[in-house]
Order: sequence, then C-alpha cells, then structure tokens
Amino acid sequence: MSSSFHELNQKRDQMKLDWNRVLPSNELLFDRWEKAKYVGAGEGTSIYDSCMLLGDVKIGKNTWVGPYTLLDGSGGGLSIGDFCSISSGVQIYTHDTVKWSLSGGKHGKVSGATKIGDNCYIAPMCIISMGVTIGNGCVVGANSFVNKSFPDYTIIAGTPAKKIGEVHFGADGEIELDYSSKE
Amino acid sequence: MSSSFHELNQKRDQMKLDWNRVLPSNELLFDRWEKAKYVGAGEGTSIYDSCMLLGDVKIGKNTWVGPYTLLDGSGGGLSIGDFCSISSGVQIYTHDTVKWSLSGGKHGKVSGATKIGDNCYIAPMCIISMGVTIGNGCVVGANSFVNKSFPDYTIIAGTPAKKIGEVHFGADGEIELDYSSKE
Amino acid sequence: MSSSFHELNQKRDQMKLDWNRVLPSNELLFDRWEKAKYVGAGEGTSIYDSCMLLGDVKIGKNTWVGPYTLLDGSGGGLSIGDFCSISSGVQIYTHDTVKWSLSGGKHGKVSGATKIGDNCYIAPMCIISMGVTIGNGCVVGANSFVNKSFPDYTIIAGTPAKKIGEVHFGADGEIELDYSSKE
Repeated sequence: MSSSFHELNQKRDQMKLDWNRVLPSNELLFDRWEKAKYVGAGEGTSIYDSCMLLGDVKIGKNTWVGPYTLLDGSGGGLSIGDFCSISSGVQIYTHDTVKWSLSGGKHGKVSGATKIGDNCYIAPMCIISMGVTIGNGCVVGANSFVNKSFPDYTIIAGTPAKKIGEVHFGADGEIELDYSSKE
Repeated sequence: MSSSFHELNQKRDQMKLDWNRVLPSNELLFDRWEKAKYVGAGEGTSIYDSCMLLGDVKIGKNTWVGPYTLLDGSGGGLSIGDFCSISSGVQIYTHDTVKWSLSGGKHGKVSGATKIGDNCYIAPMCIISMGVTIGNGCVVGANSFVNKSFPDYTIIAGTPAKKIGEVHFGADGEIELDYSSKE
Repeated sequence: MSSSFHELNQKRDQMKLDWNRVLPSNELLFDRWEKAKYVGAGEGTSIYDSCMLLGDVKIGKNTWVGPYTLLDGSGGGLSIGDFCSISSGVQIYTHDTVKWSLSGGKHGKVSGATKIGDNCYIAPMCIISMGVTIGNGCVVGANSFVNKSFPDYTIIAGTPAKKIGEVHFGADGEIELDYSSKE
C-alpha cells in the first residue's frame, strides 16, 4: 500500500490544484464520467464512486448523480431521465424489506418499478420509494420521502411528500416556481 | 496503485457480472459477511464496508446493515437484535456533543445506552438518539428522528418520531400494518 | 492489491485494538487531523475522509467534521467557526442546480455564500442551503433543512427549519436549552 498510498496522495494534490476539491479517497480512483459509461448511462452523465447501483438502472443523458447515493433497480427496474440532478445522499428504491424483517425472513422483499422523468431536480437526501413515478420537470425539496407518484412539473416536498407547487415556463422560457397550488 | 487499481477493476467487473451491482470501490475490498463476523455479529448478518462502528456494538443474527450507516456504541453500548433491516444511511447513537460545542469544549459529551429489538425495520436515513429503546417488531418510517422509546410492534414516523400505528399478526402469521391507533 | 489489502487489514486490526472502532476502509488511509490541516482548517479540527470539500471552504479551530458530509464552498465561499460539531451526513451548500435541471442546462447554477458561526451544533443529516448565515452558539436539530438565516443562540429544527427555542447561559456558565420562545 505504501506505493499505492503515495499515488493516492498525488491524485489528491492534483485534484486540489486542478479543481479546488478535496474528495473522499475512493473518489480519486474512478472518473465520474467513466463510471456513468460503465453502467450504460447516456452521454454527459456523471456518477460519483460512492453511488451504489443495484440491478437494472437506466440513466439518460447529462444527468448528475452525487456522492453517497443509492440507485436500486433490483426490484422492478429504475429509470432516470435526462438533465436530472440526483443530489448527494438521494436514495431511490424498487423494493423494501418491511415484511421480511417483521416476519423473521418468512416473507420475501416486496418490489415495484420506479421512474424519474427528464429535467427533474431531486434535492439532497430525498428518499423515493418503490413503485413511484415522478414526471418530467419536477422539483423534489430537500429531505423529502416520496411514496406516491406525481405528474409533470410538480413541486414536491415533505415526509411523506405532497404537492406544494408547480413549475411554469414563461413565453421566453423563464422558469417560475409557483407555490399557489398545493395539495 | 496501478496493479492495485487493475485488481479493483477486475473485482468491479466480477461483481457486475455475478450480481448486476456496481458498488462504491471500497465495498469491493471487504466482504459484508466477513465484516459482520469481524465485529462479532451473529450468523447470517451482513454489514457494508461504509458502515462505521464505534465502541461497544452488539448485533444479532440475520440482520442487514446497509451502506453509509453509523452505529455508535461509544457512549453506553448499542445493541441490535435479529432479522433487523438497518437501512442505508441510518445513524444510531449512544452520545451527543450539543453541550460540548455550545460550551467550547468545557462540557464533555453526554451518553446513554441504545437498544433496537428483534425484527425491526429501520427505514433509510433514520436517526436514533442516545438512550432510546425500540421494542421488537417495530417499523420506523423513512427519514425519522427518534428521540424517545417505543414498545414492541409500534409503527413510528416523523421528526421527532411519534407512534403512527401498530403491527398486528393474523392467526396465519399474516402481517397487518394498522394505522388506526396514533399518538 | 494483495499487499495493499494486507496492509489495510493490519490498519483495521490496529484501529479496532487502539480505539474499538471499525471504520469504512477508506477512513483507514488518511488521518482526520492531517486532512483538516491539508484543507487549511484551524488547530484541533478533524475531518473524516468521506467528507467532500468543494471550492473555498474555511474551517476554524477544534471543529469536528463527521463522515459522509459535504461542504460546498464552490458557489460563494463557505465558512465554519470554532468548536462546531458538523455531524455525520450534514451537507452545507453555496449553490443549487434547480434551474439548471428544469431548463435542460440553459440556466447555470445559482450561488451564494454560507456561514456557520462558532460553537454550533449541527445535528446529523441536516442540509443547509446556499446563502444562509447561522450565528454563534446555535443548535440545529437532526434532519433539518435550513433555508434561511438565524441569529446567535437560536435552536432550530424542521424542514424547512424554524426557530424552536433559545440557548441561554447561567451565571456559572451552565447551559439551558429554552424551548419557550418559538417561531
């Protein structure tokens, strides 16, 4: 490890010099864009080393997947669109083990497909349950737990998450976050 | 690191081929079941490499401990039963440093033993405070902050967490999550 | 990796023997105090390897920065004072990408400087947004999402976070957490 450790230190220095970033050491080993390609994600997508991908996970183009994330496609398949922000700490599921634990292993895990549309901003540390569909152009507020589906252009927040507004676009493409229409 | 890195890449390929998983690179180095044995956990328990264990932590059999978790037994001892799901991102404490910070280090940390029973499902990113006891067969909802104790078969959620229901078992062992009895 | 892995195992054994801790393997490679020095933090500060630091981050003396944290100074600069507890899983931002995602990359990221005073306790898994100032001697409860500023000695909790109390000091320096004055 002595020589490995020396190389890791050099990578740390180079990253600091080039990008003014000091990353967890495992993030120095793999390139985020290479990892995205490795899992078959679209052009321009990047995925940090500390993202855990399980099972069948499809990710579109130009999507940013942060560190400490969990993308679980082991239940029924997970798909994520283009230009999404999957912020740090986000966990998206296609299964749960509630009944497995309660039954002492007699019940298996329960599962369902989960889908995130294009252009979605999923804020830090959100949890999205199995079976949920989130439409295009949605904003999910920080720390939310989403256990039901929402249509395109919904602003969502809370535990469990509810609609707290809508995304509108002006004639010139200007974005308005409209909080007048709540659930 | 060049040869180490080459070996890490091979492990990554093998994991993808065998299990359709792409794990954070550190998870490729240690086996989850080996780690559980290393910390004295019971038969059938697995613990991801990115779980941090501090101090006196006892874990039963067939329990699943996810990534990015923190199990702190440094205060008064932490015990976790059999067939629990300690989901990804869960943090369980036996100390806090509130007064340490506020006093500029004059106060020490405060501590207390924490206990999780058997057959508990602790959902992703829950935080359980020092001194808390959670009984057998409890379900703690995603994103909860638990700072008081709850008896067997309670469904718990919120920040701070409250009772939102009860777990019942039918004559045939069928599990019912009953939300009629709340705090 | 075989020899590297052997060395990592030895470090794991030594850490367990010396400190009764079993750490994620990447935490065995770098010393927490060395990392703090490496990023220019003050004397007595420690920062776990799995803390990700981006851009311009200033950290004072005797501050504890936990694992799985994200300190983002890439937007407008982030400063954190002395004797803070930046608990495990905390994420502090100086930018967001809401409009970047919604616009399909036409809008850039939005940014603003963020500041945490001295003697603050930031509980596990809090998220602090860009542009926020938290005064000295504040307590931010677990799982909070802080998207506005608070003055010295405020107790803060919730998503979004509100004032739920005040920190008082007795004549003898005794700390009182007073929950009578809420927002």
